Amino acid sequence: MVVLGIDPGLANLGLGLIEGDARRAKHLYHVCLTTESAWLMPRRLHYLHDEVARLLGEYRPDAVAIEDQILRKQADVAFKVGQAFGVVQLACAQAGVPVHAYGPMQVKKTLVGAGRAEKEQVIYMVKAQLGIRELFNNHAADALALALTHLAHVPMQSRAAVALRS
Amino acid sequence: MVVLGIDPGLANLGLGLIEGDARRAKHLYHVCLTTESAWLMPRRLHYLHDEVARLLGEYRPDAVAIEDQILRKQADVAFKVGQAFGVVQLACAQAGVPVHAYGPMQVKKTLVGAGRAEKEQVIYMVKAQLGIRELFNNHAADALALALTHLAHVPMQSRAAVALRS
Repeated sequence: MVVLGIDPGLANLGLGLIEGDARRAKHLYHVCLTTESAWLMPRRLHYLHDEVARLLGEYRPDAVAIEDQILRKQADVAFKVGQAFGVVQLACAQAGVPVHAYGPMQVKKTLVGAGRAEKEQVIYMVKAQLGIRELFNNHAADALALALTHLAHVPMQSRAAVALRS
Repeated sequence: MVVLGIDPGLANLGLGLIEGDARRAKHLYHVCLTTESAWLMPRRLHYLHDEVARLLGEYRPDAVAIEDQILRKQADVAFKVGQAFGVVQLACAQAGVPVHAYGPMQVKKTLVGAGRAEKEQVIYMVKAQLGIRELFNNHAADALALALTHLAHVPMQSRAAVALRS
């Protein structure tokens, strides 16, 4: 199966596409979309929505794995991330792709084996599992980590989709 | 000119369409979209986006007036409203309609003449200005109030559009 991992954000939105199963995964593509704070909000959301929709149309993933938001942040930050999160989920709903959410600790536990692992350890495991040497962008690495987490959880079928195919 | 006022929210999203200028305005339509909390988030966002997009396509407003969010609320509330706000702004960007934001105090000051006016006074003025007898829904009333506020501000040209036609 093909999985698109998404690390949602307004200024930086990480996307990572992989294909495979719980035993073996292949890297397909990764990118970090960036929008400038000088852009007007509708333009930023339009750009993010269209790029995510384009990737969904091009690779036709079977599932999307998105980072569950931990809202310890301030309300204004949550409001901004919420807007990006909203248009990403909309693109998935429009493409009929189910969305699964995983928290940061769940990703760390799945990839490294410890919920409190360092970020560097996660990136190391992403590189190792996908056979990538260079992976400079943290947001794209997070997105690939989310996709790998989903692949690891699919066989267990322990996690209900937060979105059904429409 | 035709103006669409939007009171954004996830569970209740008010929409109000009027036509006219600063001196005289005519009521065209109003509605309050509701989504159930039992619905999955992508479905809620999909519904809100599509209904707003449908209205934009049907009435082709010259401008959208949306409530500027005051984020004194909790981060989780801001995150939810942000998602609805995001897909609404996306629909406007896709339709090429500029979005103008007005705060609650600005609406009250414009319609009633006092920034600290009661909600009932605002609704009374919306009814009076548009010649509507019955207006039960507060969200739709807020949306119509936002649209009227925009009409009152257009001649002054004192407010830059927060979004340009794409």
